[in-house]
Amino acid sequence: MQIGFIGLGSMGAAIAMNLVKSGNDVHVFNRNPLRAEPLREAGAIVAASPAQAARSADVVFTMVADDDALTSVTFGDAGILVGLRPGALHVSMSTIGVATAQDVALAHREAGLGFVSALVFGRPDAAAARKLFIMAAGADEHLSVAVPLLEQLGQSVGIVGPDPSHANLVKLIGNFMLSVIIETLGEACAVAGKAGIDPMHLVELLTSANFNAPPYKIYGQLIASQRFQPAGFSLPLGQKDNRLMRAAADALSVPLPLASLVHNRFLALRAQGIGAEHDWSPVALCALDEAGVLKQR
Amino acid sequence: MQIGFIGLGSMGAAIAMNLVKSGNDVHVFNRNPLRAEPLREAGAIVAASPAQAARSADVVFTMVADDDALTSVTFGDAGILVGLRPGALHVSMSTIGVATAQDVALAHREAGLGFVSALVFGRPDAAAARKLFIMAAGADEHLSVAVPLLEQLGQSVGIVGPDPSHANLVKLIGNFMLSVIIETLGEACAVAGKAGIDPMHLVELLTSANFNAPPYKIYGQLIASQRFQPAGFSLPLGQKDNRLMRAAADALSVPLPLASLVHNRFLALRAQGIGAEHDWSPVALCALDEAGVLKQR
Amino acid sequence: MQIGFIGLGSMGAAIAMNLVKSGNDVHVFNRNPLRAEPLREAGAIVAASPAQAARSADVVFTMVADDDALTSVTFGDAGILVGLRPGALHVSMSTIGVATAQDVALAHREAGLGFVSALVFGRPDAAAARKLFIMAAGADEHLSVAVPLLEQLGQSVGIVGPDPSHANLVKLIGNFMLSVIIETLGEACAVAGKAGIDPMHLVELLTSANFNAPPYKIYGQLIASQRFQPAGFSLPLGQKDNRLMRAAADALSVPLPLASLVHNRFLALRAQGIGAEHDWSPVALCALDEAGVLKQR
Amino acid sequence: MQIGFIGLGSMGAAIAMNLVKSGNDVHVFNRNPLRAEPLREAGAIVAASPAQAARSADVVFTMVADDDALTSVTFGDAGILVGLRPGALHVSMSTIGVATAQDVALAHREAGLGFVSALVFGRPDAAAARKLFIMAAGADEHLSVAVPLLEQLGQSVGIVGPDPSHANLVKLIGNFMLSVIIETLGEACAVAGKAGIDPMHLVELLTSANFNAPPYKIYGQLIASQRFQPAGFSLPLGQKDNRLMRAAADALSVPLPLASLVHNRFLALRAQGIGAEHDWSPVALCALDEAGVLKQR
Repeated sequence: MQIGFIGLGSMGAAIAMNLVKSGNDVHVFNRNPLRAEPLREAGAIVAASPAQAARSADVVFTMVADDDALTSVTFGDAGILVGLRPGALHVSMSTIGVATAQDVALAHREAGLGFVSALVFGRPDAAAARKLFIMAAGADEHLSVAVPLLEQLGQSVGIVGPDPSHANLVKLIGNFMLSVIIETLGEACAVAGKAGIDPMHLVELLTSANFNAPPYKIYGQLIASQRFQPAGFSLPLGQKDNRLMRAAADALSVPLPLASLVHNRFLALRAQGIGAEHDWSPVALCALDEAGVLKQR
Repeated sequence: MQIGFIGLGSMGAAIAMNLVKSGNDVHVFNRNPLRAEPLREAGAIVAASPAQAARSADVVFTMVADDDALTSVTFGDAGILVGLRPGALHVSMSTIGVATAQDVALAHREAGLGFVSALVFGRPDAAAARKLFIMAAGADEHLSVAVPLLEQLGQSVGIVGPDPSHANLVKLIGNFMLSVIIETLGEACAVAGKAGIDPMHLVELLTSANFNAPPYKIYGQLIASQRFQPAGFSLPLGQKDNRLMRAAADALSVPLPLASLVHNRFLALRAQGIGAEHDWSPVALCALDEAGVLKQR
Repeated sequence: MQIGFIGLGSMGAAIAMNLVKSGNDVHVFNRNPLRAEPLREAGAIVAASPAQAARSADVVFTMVADDDALTSVTFGDAGILVGLRPGALHVSMSTIGVATAQDVALAHREAGLGFVSALVFGRPDAAAARKLFIMAAGADEHLSVAVPLLEQLGQSVGIVGPDPSHANLVKLIGNFMLSVIIETLGEACAVAGKAGIDPMHLVELLTSANFNAPPYKIYGQLIASQRFQPAGFSLPLGQKDNRLMRAAADALSVPLPLASLVHNRFLALRAQGIGAEHDWSPVALCALDEAGVLKQR
Repeated sequence: MQIGFIGLGSMGAAIAMNLVKSGNDVHVFNRNPLRAEPLREAGAIVAASPAQAARSADVVFTMVADDDALTSVTFGDAGILVGLRPGALHVSMSTIGVATAQDVALAHREAGLGFVSALVFGRPDAAAARKLFIMAAGADEHLSVAVPLLEQLGQSVGIVGPDPSHANLVKLIGNFMLSVIIETLGEACAVAGKAGIDPMHLVELLTSANFNAPPYKIYGQLIASQRFQPAGFSLPLGQKDNRLMRAAADALSVPLPLASLVHNRFLALRAQGIGAEHDWSPVALCALDEAGVLKQR
């Protein structure tokens, strides 16, 4: 199948590589072309613009940093809407806001193009290992094209429904829930540590019992050991997703006290100079610091 | 083995029955003797007091409602400390406060008696099916007696350490984490529902992905369907555990904003007349109500 | 003095009328010209555009609804920047965001025009009675022109400093502090009412003691009597100011848990359909409702 | 008039001195008798026990540290209930919990003794200057005796009602409202300071406008200058009052998110080792620290 792939960050590169390995013809584009080299060596064709990457594609994937980046590669002079031939499909994997997703979906519908939102849960190593959990939403005719490709990329593909933006919201909800797990583990480790229980042992006990989901294991170990670098998922990205979730909830008039709490944690971290080189797990650092058990401030 | 068992609520009765079925001689006591009948029919001996249940026991288990109940069956005129013979062991399974656990442990130590805190995660059906997750703490010589018995009762026994009260704290931390999951699911279902995503479908998607731990499944279904009765774990018990967790954290000077949030949810529910006949999952009801998506107030 | 005045809402109309009464030549503009009628009858000249109102003015005042309205009357084709002659002064009284204030101030500086931010505390009746508290900021040469005029309009003029946007921030901080007073009174009246103390009596007692500032008196009576209509300061305006304050704090990386709490109150009210016809004092309604003492939901 | 006065801390000593100066015969008692010396020199009689101070009194005042201290001086072997003659009156000025106040009031009623709760707002210098705001509650026949004496001690006496414990609750509500003002000022000064506005100037501007109540002035200056020692009203006392307020609200099922927030501030301060030698105004320190503008941690 002819595939375009735009956005070769750590997640995008791992996914695009799997599409190449699965035998597809993949035309890749990245703003910084250096990041396309490993793909080219593996057999991908490097395009000079999003439009060019989309030109011959049955399906073009995008995995870019934020709403502005997606808007730019979609609507720009050399964007996807210019390049994609009628009837072709755009599968948008970036974590963006609900309103932007609705705008982009509408523009495709009006241009006679297919559009599917397909969001992924998992870090880069899970992407490389085709272990992502994927949530897809779009019209049935578009999902019937997208899902077989997505199944090459992850361990499961959940179908959210016909409205593409609903998959974006489910992703934001998922990241919101992860952020609350991080805060929870921070408070739990603060109490345990101060009472004389090794936080790492606490995490082992709980994740061996009924808190046996991956986020408790992954973040539990980072937080118990107060190991907040290097970034698996960077703090500014986590803060961005928190902002997008709150914007979605604001638009719906839904109070989210937990998202407010996490928001204030992000601000306190930024005020301390904690930034892009850090993981977003230091959201838990605030609770540890308030309790006086932070090893290094 | 000669065993005493005090406290035959829904959890205690299920556990005691498994001890009988495993071939132990079990002397049971319950304040309301009617609840002892099924045990008697299964072969247990019904005692007239905690002391009498403890008299011939190698190990006496307690599974009672709260700190006061444990204090009463332990220190009363016909309490365990009166009945238990030197060298015997008390295994305390009740969810009680850390300070009370320390007091009770000390009293046993001073009386030359063994003491182990062994807390369980799981609802009554899990207790009956020997599927509990158990967290035990105490001196090695006491754990060596208790653990083989506990292994008859659950799917795993985690060893917290030598200080019995640490198992109590781990249990309180676990219930605190459950309460946060409930609040999280309330906020998540409020956003999803208002955006037009069926909350039940949201829960299925997330628990099929990386939120695949039992609490997300169990509470997710209750909350998505807004089914808050009958009580699996009753609201007053949940409120009590929240209070015990906050007391433990207060004593250690650890701020717990998440526990404060849940505390205020409990108060709002009580102010609406929601009580003992309800599960504690309606903690999530507040978020749904604030968002205007509660079906029935 | 030749004065332009743009924006004749309830606050603007009262202030403009006082400028007319004080003997100035006032050219007024309002999008809906009907609201200019009482001013015309009192001697003002009605202009056809912001530019026209600014044309002959030494000083043009603006008092409009929000950032968009100020941007529009300032930068539009027939805006103030087009109309104002070199060296003239724009006194901006609208409650707008800090970033917008900085943009507008910069544009004036670049155009060789004066700019002062002069924000007011007080409701329309205080404006009519020249009882406003005014906070002004700008370059000394501009303040020396603006302050004598402002002193005609209020009971005091505080000088914030040379940066106009600082007056905007002080206004946002002031409204933030008012919103917290409203929430505080809601919680206080909930406790008192449920304990059997008449909330109105509570308010009298406290405002006769050390809580004797006007906001406690004004909002205390509204909240104690649960009288939330008609709007003195409407709920959407209050919500807007809360949003502007949070945006300012976000830009500075300052966590504001109190502003987050009030934000969530606004969302809960909007979810109940409470809107523009209501005062912003029902922020206190949430605390009363949660405590079960709200008379009418 | 024959007066007993028990409790000669900084508030009690100042009040007792005024009673002496007003020409009453005052029998004083303090656990540490050294603190009674200045009173003795001024003409007071030093008693050896609460009972002895109460023996010949028409009215006995108590101003002690907490619930336990009041219970001890009231119910002890040499307590007020033993000493006071039938028909005499106990005026309780200590900031204690509502439940304790109800217990103590009941005990007096059953013993045929009068009981009035009379709580004061103001710091020691205000007590010395007879500038206290006093809130009194009790039966009319007891108020008719107490109020003329209280009017010698403060600038106003507000009558709460016939239930003595209601005055205690009004005091707790007042201190709760003060604690929220402190937190508010912390957040406000953090934003202002980070934006380049001198926090002291902010406080001057706001307290010269509509935030002109004493608490904004007093705490505003302490917080803007980050001057948290010596203690005017000590942190542990503030934390105690927060606890009593939350206990009263818990008993009534009233959620108080603001009190929860302040509670967590107190815990964070204690975790940093901030204690009895500090004022309670450092509650504001947390907001300053989170924003990164605390001068000295």
